[in-house]
Amino acid sequence: MRTLNVALAERSYEILIGPNLLGRPAAIIEQMASDRLAIVSNTTVAPLYLDRIANPLRAAGIRVTEIVLPDGENHKNWQSLNTIFDALLADRCDRATTVLALGGGVIGDLAGFAAASYQRGVRFIQAPTTLLAQVDSSVGGKTGINHPRGKNMIGAFWQPARVLADTDTLSTLPDRQLSSGMAEVIKYGLIRDLSFLEWLEDNMDRLLARDADCLAYAIERSCANKAEVVAADERETAKDNGRALLNLGHTFGHAIETGLGYGEWLHGEAIAAGTVMAAELSRRLGWIDAADVARVRGLLQRARLPVRGPALGADRYMELMGHDKKVMAGRLRLVLLKRIGEAVTCSETVAADIRAAIETCCV
Amino acid sequence: MRTLNVALAERSYEILIGPNLLGRPAAIIEQMASDRLAIVSNTTVAPLYLDRIANPLRAAGIRVTEIVLPDGENHKNWQSLNTIFDALLADRCDRATTVLALGGGVIGDLAGFAAASYQRGVRFIQAPTTLLAQVDSSVGGKTGINHPRGKNMIGAFWQPARVLADTDTLSTLPDRQLSSGMAEVIKYGLIRDLSFLEWLEDNMDRLLARDADCLAYAIERSCANKAEVVAADERETAKDNGRALLNLGHTFGHAIETGLGYGEWLHGEAIAAGTVMAAELSRRLGWIDAADVARVRGLLQRARLPVRGPALGADRYMELMGHDKKVMAGRLRLVLLKRIGEAVTCSETVAADIRAAIETCCV
Repeated sequence: MRTLNVALAERSYEILIGPNLLGRPAAIIEQMASDRLAIVSNTTVAPLYLDRIANPLRAAGIRVTEIVLPDGENHKNWQSLNTIFDALLADRCDRATTVLALGGGVIGDLAGFAAASYQRGVRFIQAPTTLLAQVDSSVGGKTGINHPRGKNMIGAFWQPARVLADTDTLSTLPDRQLSSGMAEVIKYGLIRDLSFLEWLEDNMDRLLARDADCLAYAIERSCANKAEVVAADERETAKDNGRALLNLGHTFGHAIETGLGYGEWLHGEAIAAGTVMAAELSRRLGWIDAADVARVRGLLQRARLPVRGPALGADRYMELMGHDKKVMAGRLRLVLLKRIGEAVTCSETVAADIRAAIETCCV
Repeated sequence: MRTLNVALAERSYEILIGPNLLGRPAAIIEQMASDRLAIVSNTTVAPLYLDRIANPLRAAGIRVTEIVLPDGENHKNWQSLNTIFDALLADRCDRATTVLALGGGVIGDLAGFAAASYQRGVRFIQAPTTLLAQVDSSVGGKTGINHPRGKNMIGAFWQPARVLADTDTLSTLPDRQLSSGMAEVIKYGLIRDLSFLEWLEDNMDRLLARDADCLAYAIERSCANKAEVVAADERETAKDNGRALLNLGHTFGHAIETGLGYGEWLHGEAIAAGTVMAAELSRRLGWIDAADVARVRGLLQRARLPVRGPALGADRYMELMGHDKKVMAGRLRLVLLKRIGEAVTCSETVAADIRAAIETCCV
């Protein structure tokens, strides 16, 4: 088992990475404030793993409340959040209750926001079961739900007390979901860790074959990269080059997700196409060359990810991007590649270049 | 103008108390992160004060988004919260936008939770227009909404950047609302400030006659008391005698509000009857005597507040109190009076005594 410490002053916590973590109740119980735990999961993950985690806890004397939501990004909304609140209140969960998220990023975001808001905040533990959630949403404390007008528009920063990244859960992950997570793994290499990017280029085939050691290493290195960025800028208040760098490809990607309707493309798929758009725009600014763009596109393709966005039309992309949270005072602030392995935030791009990059990178 | 500093480390802020604060745009602008402000108010307050605050701001170059909600505790719910989010998104408010609450406690709680959750948190300024909001909800950072199963069950701790307690707004406050606020003013005397309680006994008639200097003094002293308690226990994590002391009368009072349906009784009215119940229970424990209970009841009556709860039946009270946030691990933790001027938390009461206190103090 690998252990990674996320240093956030009084809110520091550990990420445990390895096999069979769900079957170790002590790893959960030692982080709880009472004997009450509410597990939030979904209809896909619960049949596979809910008993595995809940039975040993119950045997250890923990009173477990089970809350199973429908699966999918299109359920990351008020209705699901209220389902959680209704269940917590119906079972008389008090302020000493711990909420545990068992599932992917959607479950983590929903359960995390519920934990942040229930009785103005209760303890939160994450047990991410997708690669995407293990390398991305389990670090950084971002929680929230979508709004019809934009993704993640409502939420909170709420740090978990612990994260259990059980690599056994990746064995049941569909190929498409594995690739989706790989988009974020590749992102860490692109924005700040060239040697990790080279390692990924050398090991992508083993990763896709689900080599357990390779996956654990990729998760740890991804989380370590994210943790360093987050520790320096916990609430994304840095004006430039702080936590915002983690959003490489995300402004374009969110436009894809919103434009198609949440859930049509997986998050990592949209980010992959968005990353190519960001690379293409970086090339138009003269920061990287065509070979660099091809390198980005090539690695994403090897990870079985889409490298072209859907044909929404540049106008629609621009409109959707105007609603993104990363807009500062009406001006679009994008994350671009100064070079391969180093991203920067940039508010100086002109609309014509952004439109051209979009048009070049759509089907 | 009186200025009170609420000391909360990096989240410290000032409460300004005095006449004509709404007409001073600089007091708001110097706390904003950009030129965008969203004012949340209700249909009662907006016609009286929205132009007074918004016009000078617009003249100073601020872009103001106006969000006017229906009035009343029964609108402190998901629907109103979503109305705020919809309006913020429709007007493309970004993360640098400041949310300002113009109204009573309901508007403060709603706008505060919206500010805490919109794009995971934006700046927040409070302009409370009721006595209750000026002495209670403007200090401490508690925000939230009600759930059909309980009051304030969903919310966040979110501190304002500044509070403007404009005493001019009390001139239009209905008598019943003024008395409601007085219940919380009296509470501060009862729980920790005997000399303030004596001052209130000497000055209640002038306060009810809306003597401006008297009101400003009572607001300042109330806020100072609350600020001291909150500074020592910001997130209500102290096991005993911390921030929980501010809840004198509230466990009983919340049962009244929930049992009758939110909005039937004003918050302070329910707290007043609940405070008498807490005093009666304290007498049954031998901590205070019948004369003390009569003193509590007498001052509340002079403030034109109800001193008996509605006849819900003791069973219903007990059931409703079991859902209160102040229940720790299934055990009812009440705030009681060790003596007049000193409250303590107590988990040692037996159900029979609680029921008897309720029955003694209902119509």
